[in-house]
Amino acid sequence: MTSPSVSSELYGPVRDDVGKVDDLITALRPKDFPFLSNILDHVLEAGGKRVRPAVALLAGKLGAYDLELLIPLAASIELVHSASLVHDDVIDAAATRRGRATANALFNNAATVMVGDYMFANAADLVARTGNVEVVRLFARTLMEMTTGELQQDMSAYEYGQDTRKYFNRIYGKTASLFAAAAQGGGMVAGLQDEQCQALRSYGENVGMAFQIMDDILDFTADATELGKPAGSDLMNGTLTLPALLLIERDPEGNPVKRFFAGGKGKAENLRRALKQIRESDILDESFRVAHDFRDKGLAALANVGTADDPAIESLTDVAYWVTQRRN
Amino acid sequence: MTSPSVSSELYGPVRDDVGKVDDLITALRPKDFPFLSNILDHVLEAGGKRVRPAVALLAGKLGAYDLELLIPLAASIELVHSASLVHDDVIDAAATRRGRATANALFNNAATVMVGDYMFANAADLVARTGNVEVVRLFARTLMEMTTGELQQDMSAYEYGQDTRKYFNRIYGKTASLFAAAAQGGGMVAGLQDEQCQALRSYGENVGMAFQIMDDILDFTADATELGKPAGSDLMNGTLTLPALLLIERDPEGNPVKRFFAGGKGKAENLRRALKQIRESDILDESFRVAHDFRDKGLAALANVGTADDPAIESLTDVAYWVTQRRN
Repeated sequence: MTSPSVSSELYGPVRDDVGKVDDLITALRPKDFPFLSNILDHVLEAGGKRVRPAVALLAGKLGAYDLELLIPLAASIELVHSASLVHDDVIDAAATRRGRATANALFNNAATVMVGDYMFANAADLVARTGNVEVVRLFARTLMEMTTGELQQDMSAYEYGQDTRKYFNRIYGKTASLFAAAAQGGGMVAGLQDEQCQALRSYGENVGMAFQIMDDILDFTADATELGKPAGSDLMNGTLTLPALLLIERDPEGNPVKRFFAGGKGKAENLRRALKQIRESDILDESFRVAHDFRDKGLAALANVGTADDPAIESLTDVAYWVTQRRN
Repeated sequence: MTSPSVSSELYGPVRDDVGKVDDLITALRPKDFPFLSNILDHVLEAGGKRVRPAVALLAGKLGAYDLELLIPLAASIELVHSASLVHDDVIDAAATRRGRATANALFNNAATVMVGDYMFANAADLVARTGNVEVVRLFARTLMEMTTGELQQDMSAYEYGQDTRKYFNRIYGKTASLFAAAAQGGGMVAGLQDEQCQALRSYGENVGMAFQIMDDILDFTADATELGKPAGSDLMNGTLTLPALLLIERDPEGNPVKRFFAGGKGKAENLRRALKQIRESDILDESFRVAHDFRDKGLAALANVGTADDPAIESLTDVAYWVTQRRN
């Protein structure tokens, strides 16, 4: 659910307009098809803080702020995000997300695949409402990057001996790509110049990288209540994230991740040990440092777009800090 | 596989350009991601006669025939078609399609969902290359209609007591919608006037309806070799198509479909009986008549677009007749 306190502090000059994005998405539910409408309700209520649409609107604030174009763009970004979660849940066969039952746990795989497709279709229509074919192509490319990122994650599950470069590629596709598109797309729709749009893209990309690394850290540190899923679930699903990769880097042969991936009896005990070793070493500090580096690269890019006293720049800066400070 | 004899006869003035659509689709495979490339190869080789892209090109022939715009449009239509088959196969958990193993039988559900998404994303990029935002919106709306059609089919599985109106709605979404978009989109990209584009849409929609009804008839009449799947598979999956609906209409209580849907022992025998009753009655003749009616409505619409001696009109006419004469 949108937390009003978070968005009013964070999203400054676009705070009221983020609500309009939700209104537009709500209005899209097909009234003559209650089954689909209900699934969409369920899926969209489970959404987070609408940080991606906020980034798109804030980028738009730096140029010609036309809500007729920017609200559809921002709604399209949020729908792509939600649709990708819906399809990910089919893939992971996840039963809960953020503490709520996933669509595929309540409905069947078939319906869930189609609902995701329906959301992608709606997102394509929304992005076309910007009237900007280049923005449509940005949308399409982003979708390609997201799906290849997800495929790479799926393919590399339980693959021991990945390096961090591969991890960074993966989370670029999975997460940073859409943040990048939100910031760049907002700038494009608002008529900013090419270099400004590219700088906004760099902001979005780097903040998105930081966002995913934080997600991956939280999977080790947060408790199930904060997270809405069991801690250590990435490792449990065979997904190597930064903290696990750093543990492997330090002790390639002797670490419990390797033994956990090898399976057999003692599997649960090896998972427990891996979590404990990561939590009790300085690995999480190092992971935070990596996230902070990305955030700072994002902030540096922002300096090429506007001055620090511009309310939109200020708010984009706040968003970047919030990303690395959030607890869930 | 494309049957050269079919396309050279049928597709007249665009016959060589249909091959360029395939070339463009082939060129889109990501060279740096062999896993995805290989799945795409597998999925796209399984394709049919490229009738949808041919319709788009033929519609384009009636106006300003610009291949720079029409080939991407036609490729986008074919990709949407293939992507929807890929996702349908996840849904139906089908093991074969046209006698070939489906993607989800060779790979896993996860990869298959993502490959479908990747294809949709590519299709969105291709349609944006037309530079025409209205065509992008047509594409998006079509995708919505297709997904709701598929959901309706999924939801109504084993639902006894549907009427033919519900069936027609379903196959409109599932099949006719994309034929309609191919014809209308081709006209739009070629700069035809609104009424012409609407008439082309009507052609595509009605020919698409005929196409699906023929598919549904063939499921009862063709043998497994011609069809590449076991005969009667629709009924086996709980999908009521026109022939089964006509059987039910004639004998709502006593027919074997009702007993088959009720399950229990004798299920296989009831399925066998339903197939036999349909094949040995005039139900198939009546179903052909319905398909022919749709075809003729499509041909009537065509009369509003051009004269019968125009090679593109001639070829669109041939396509309509081919649709109701095909054996697989």
